[in-house]
Amino acid sequence: MKHLKFLPVTLSLLFAIAVVCFSLLHAEEGMWPIDHLSKELIREMQAKGLSLSDEELYTTDGKGVINAVVDLGGGTGSFVSPEGLIITNHHVAFGAIQQMSTAENNYIEKGFLAKTREDEPQALGFNAYVLLSSKDVTEEVLSYVNDSMSPLERFNAVEQAQKEIVKEAEEGRDVFCEVAAMYGGLSYTLYTYLKIKDLRVVYVPPASIGNYGGDIDNWMWPRHTGDFSFLRAYVAPNGKTAEYSEENVPYRPKSYLKIASEPTREGDFALVAGYPGHTYRHVTSYTIENDINFYYPTKIDIFNEWTNIIADHAARDPEAGVKMAGLKEGLENSKKNAHGMLEGFQRYRLLDRKLHLEEEFKAFLAGDAQMEKEYGHILPEIKSQYDHVKSYQLQRMLFSYIKLRGLFQAAYTIYKWNVEQEKTDLERDPDYMERELPDIRRKLQNLDRKYHPAVDRDMLVMFLRRMAALPAGRRIQAVDEILAGVPEDERDVAINEFVDALYSGTRLTDVEARLAMLDSGTKHLVEEGDPFILFAAQLYPEVEELQERRDAFDGALSVLRPQWVKALMEWQKQALYPDANNTLRINYGVVRGYAPRDAVSYESFTTLDGVLEKYRGEDPFDLPPQIFELVEKQDFGPYRDPVLNDVPVDFLTTNDSTGGNSGSPLLNHKGELIGLLFDGNYESISADFMFIEEMTRTINVDIRYVLFIADKLNNARNVLQEMGVLE
Amino acid sequence: MKHLKFLPVTLSLLFAIAVVCFSLLHAEEGMWPIDHLSKELIREMQAKGLSLSDEELYTTDGKGVINAVVDLGGGTGSFVSPEGLIITNHHVAFGAIQQMSTAENNYIEKGFLAKTREDEPQALGFNAYVLLSSKDVTEEVLSYVNDSMSPLERFNAVEQAQKEIVKEAEEGRDVFCEVAAMYGGLSYTLYTYLKIKDLRVVYVPPASIGNYGGDIDNWMWPRHTGDFSFLRAYVAPNGKTAEYSEENVPYRPKSYLKIASEPTREGDFALVAGYPGHTYRHVTSYTIENDINFYYPTKIDIFNEWTNIIADHAARDPEAGVKMAGLKEGLENSKKNAHGMLEGFQRYRLLDRKLHLEEEFKAFLAGDAQMEKEYGHILPEIKSQYDHVKSYQLQRMLFSYIKLRGLFQAAYTIYKWNVEQEKTDLERDPDYMERELPDIRRKLQNLDRKYHPAVDRDMLVMFLRRMAALPAGRRIQAVDEILAGVPEDERDVAINEFVDALYSGTRLTDVEARLAMLDSGTKHLVEEGDPFILFAAQLYPEVEELQERRDAFDGALSVLRPQWVKALMEWQKQALYPDANNTLRINYGVVRGYAPRDAVSYESFTTLDGVLEKYRGEDPFDLPPQIFELVEKQDFGPYRDPVLNDVPVDFLTTNDSTGGNSGSPLLNHKGELIGLLFDGNYESISADFMFIEEMTRTINVDIRYVLFIADKLNNARNVLQEMGVLE
Repeated sequence: MKHLKFLPVTLSLLFAIAVVCFSLLHAEEGMWPIDHLSKELIREMQAKGLSLSDEELYTTDGKGVINAVVDLGGGTGSFVSPEGLIITNHHVAFGAIQQMSTAENNYIEKGFLAKTREDEPQALGFNAYVLLSSKDVTEEVLSYVNDSMSPLERFNAVEQAQKEIVKEAEEGRDVFCEVAAMYGGLSYTLYTYLKIKDLRVVYVPPASIGNYGGDIDNWMWPRHTGDFSFLRAYVAPNGKTAEYSEENVPYRPKSYLKIASEPTREGDFALVAGYPGHTYRHVTSYTIENDINFYYPTKIDIFNEWTNIIADHAARDPEAGVKMAGLKEGLENSKKNAHGMLEGFQRYRLLDRKLHLEEEFKAFLAGDAQMEKEYGHILPEIKSQYDHVKSYQLQRMLFSYIKLRGLFQAAYTIYKWNVEQEKTDLERDPDYMERELPDIRRKLQNLDRKYHPAVDRDMLVMFLRRMAALPAGRRIQAVDEILAGVPEDERDVAINEFVDALYSGTRLTDVEARLAMLDSGTKHLVEEGDPFILFAAQLYPEVEELQERRDAFDGALSVLRPQWVKALMEWQKQALYPDANNTLRINYGVVRGYAPRDAVSYESFTTLDGVLEKYRGEDPFDLPPQIFELVEKQDFGPYRDPVLNDVPVDFLTTNDSTGGNSGSPLLNHKGELIGLLFDGNYESISADFMFIEEMTRTINVDIRYVLFIADKLNNARNVLQEMGVLE
Repeated sequence: MKHLKFLPVTLSLLFAIAVVCFSLLHAEEGMWPIDHLSKELIREMQAKGLSLSDEELYTTDGKGVINAVVDLGGGTGSFVSPEGLIITNHHVAFGAIQQMSTAENNYIEKGFLAKTREDEPQALGFNAYVLLSSKDVTEEVLSYVNDSMSPLERFNAVEQAQKEIVKEAEEGRDVFCEVAAMYGGLSYTLYTYLKIKDLRVVYVPPASIGNYGGDIDNWMWPRHTGDFSFLRAYVAPNGKTAEYSEENVPYRPKSYLKIASEPTREGDFALVAGYPGHTYRHVTSYTIENDINFYYPTKIDIFNEWTNIIADHAARDPEAGVKMAGLKEGLENSKKNAHGMLEGFQRYRLLDRKLHLEEEFKAFLAGDAQMEKEYGHILPEIKSQYDHVKSYQLQRMLFSYIKLRGLFQAAYTIYKWNVEQEKTDLERDPDYMERELPDIRRKLQNLDRKYHPAVDRDMLVMFLRRMAALPAGRRIQAVDEILAGVPEDERDVAINEFVDALYSGTRLTDVEARLAMLDSGTKHLVEEGDPFILFAAQLYPEVEELQERRDAFDGALSVLRPQWVKALMEWQKQALYPDANNTLRINYGVVRGYAPRDAVSYESFTTLDGVLEKYRGEDPFDLPPQIFELVEKQDFGPYRDPVLNDVPVDFLTTNDSTGGNSGSPLLNHKGELIGLLFDGNYESISADFMFIEEMTRTINVDIRYVLFIADKLNNARNVLQEMGVLE
């Protein structure tokens, strides 16, 4: 889901976009905002092989190739037909496939192909955001703040500014807006999207193709995953966006991508466009230190226990396996990411490098009284913020994860919705503003599809145990009250009994009941006495208080971080791209392998032969039996690469990417689709913090493998015809 | 230890060496007996770059470069100075280093360097066999057998022939002889060696160099192990071989190797000479089937439990760790080998290929009545032998492993020695002939160094448990007697009590007592009533009976296997090299990397930089701190490779090798030492059964890394001066 990102700013930093005028170093590094593309970057891409003119690349009237790219909320897609057909990753569309599936009719396993429009089922929970326009609103935002504000006041003022600007921009129009902070708040941009709310599933290969290699191969090269799926965008017959309805018609995009007309080769130019989530390229050593010593190790520890709970249940109950598949995949992915991050920090000595940079910066300041006066305060103040955050970050992390799933999430959402209802729309937490209601309702409606009572219960027990075990000074009062008078060695039994009582007493398992509760009003809701609601209400004040402390931290950092970026740019006399923030970015690179370690070279393409080489006959290295027949008969059609003499499967490029880029189109020099980005290599995980040119690669599925599977394995002729690949 | 290999033969197969006259296919495949080198092979090597003449390569008077190669019993070494200095692998000399070490003075960990001759300690349990001559004795051996003999009679007759030929050849001379069956018995060769019995330790690097990567990297590429050690051969002042004595003097070999005078590069010619143990290139599908379904899986299962026992004790008691290190390393190595074998069988579909070959053979026979008559019986008869072996191979395997270690090994050896004493020397089991007495005594003497009571006890319990759990029809009577009347669920307790009684009642832990028992005579030995001896005596008849059944199997196969090889050669009109059998072989190849799987390439050299890349600060990826200083200072001396711009560490060649080749010298085109073979790559494990040209590689330590470590890390100037590397 797409959410507004609120990052405040200070008035003293009003110089914004001008920074892009510095010279560009490391051109393959950096995800450049599409609306801030410098001519210099475009010329550079053209010099490296791009054959498109500026207008063919991107236009404000929506007709450039990049205009075909859409945000799917946490992933990227692109239009590939005039009838709203969207191509994205299998793992991006996974939630939709999972919700279509049951233990009896498992589309995850079998794959799915709609032969006609009528057969296309709803992609539950999915929206597509088509970028319509962008506008710099830095002055407007900064008019809400002044230097006498406390960090929390600043945070709230900027949030207020963003909400009001958005409200005004959306007023009376069929659009969805957000204000994004660039460089952590050096400037602000208002992005206006068409939010298409009716997405449907068109074609999904079986998981033995789309998720081949599974968690084992995740982040790994060589890779052999056919990580693609096709969705379709629908709008009302009058062309307006609309919730799912039978009468809706396919959306007709202004721009859609053509399939590559020539084979992709080692060394070829490759352009990526998409919605990368977050990078942290310009953070200080204090962030890295906290990530190394607290954030990633704690996350790994919690997620290990969580995935063990799921695995235990899945081993005994296939339904638990199906319903928790998406969550488990997400948790495993996060764990591997966290491990890779820690390994990368160590391998590239990131903390040392940051410390070294900061020492150099201090030495520079020592020789320049004016700079010292302006910037000397930054690092000590950031340090002091991190010292403070250590006192509450563990409690806050437990709350943030417990709110992620199942009945507790429902209870908390319902309770908070009722509380927030008592405020005006613009005063509310942005996630609880009126415009979020349809998404909130939809989530509550579909909860059962990802809910498994026994798993949900055990997860809650795990979090309560961890809360009960917090050290003195960091206790959660509500949990202490629940366990008041229970001796240390009986806590565990008490927690289990308490949780069992929640599940046996609640009405939240009834979809009508939970939807009705949205309209209860706080007082009545509490009087109804649903134990889960009461539990959420009991935790509520502390959750919100911790959030306020975090908001104050963010408020302070929203002043300090842009100052730090500005100081770096002035000191180093170099343009820095803004960190990724879920806005449309482009980046160019080339098809290229790498040398991961001494005496080992990775080539840039994998092949169908390599798919068979990994086959073990069991998940995640199982294959549809027809694949063997196709290889036996060498029935590769036009998808055989003349150099590899085999069907190419996945390939590496030097592009810069991160989470959120999943599903991004890879375009060749003519702007044609050559593949879909679906992962970074293991060595690049820590690239979120530092781009290491010789090691950072994106992993992409080759469009020829997509077509081969669609054509030869799944006979998806209708899809291929729609894309103009078959007649 | 070196043992005679007894494989019988049938008179009908008298055509021997003539087969080498067929054309040579796959020249890089095959380990060719040094005494049967065809001119054709030498010409071929010369065409591929070898600059040596036939005489410089190998001569019967001991002056060729290959004459510098010695058998160390299970591994290979070579002379590298006129004063008997031998270079071999760290893992080959490991047993000697281990026996020098204690928990307090751990030379495994620290390494060891004797600065003078006087400082060189005995390499306990080590012999060096210097090949003096060889002679074809096929006719003599075959004169002992006739076609009317049963398989067991044949087996015994050939064994008798071999013993008598050896006895006559050794009579009155300072030599050690053995008769080796070539091609499983197509021909027989008498090999005469000088057996040097006083070996000493000169220089061993720390295990953090010599075993860097440990079990994790074992069989793996890229590799970064400095797997080398130096020993010295000593003889009596009169030049005769002698047991260790202070008055002994360094042995002066007729030939010793020179260190390479030019850098080794990708693509260079490389010659390997050594004592490979066993290959099975010409076996039938029945062997493979039994290996896949019984031999390797059962071995893995037993060794897993065994290594867990050792690990458990080592975690609690460092002394157990030190004393069991060698055994643990051996078991881990065997397990990884077994896994690799099974993976290779599957990857290269070895069973299918053998079955296919045999089907083709049958089809060929069907069209040729004469060949059908001569060879049609072979495959059905081999099948029938394997059907029978299945009924007793599990019991036999348990006996063979239980006899490998500790007090049970001592008890069984002593008991059997006394029994065998009642026969004439030539009638005895060859391992119990008079000439073996010094080795038997030495082993009993040194038992304590590799003995840890608690580990030994638990191992014995494991084997008894497994024996007690054997299925009906395969029971061991002696074990049934021990457990007579014990209900199923009390067996475990009974086994533990029985074993505890053995250890508390035995005198075998006293070195004088166990040595004295060798001279007791069976009757007196039994009357003395040592419980361990009585237990060995109780098992003895069944162990021997199973051995007789195996001998009969070997007897039958010793007729059938040579017939099979002969049939293959006649059918395919192609020369086959004889399988490895612990005799001196040479083989040539080139320095070359490989592509282990889709999109991955392995380069042929690793570097010191790669050593540091793997560093984790803990075993097996720990390093001596001085290494970092050397790298920091780039203090690489003359050992830096100009192309790699770093110190080369290990390298790959296409040579054909197997266990026993460990420590083999790699020679360049001038016959100079460029490295030591110490492993095969994982993909080549199953090459014992089938050589896959594009995948089979040997892993070698570069002599420049040996010199760099000796010079810069350990300051072993005396060793380098002796080799002529330093002045």
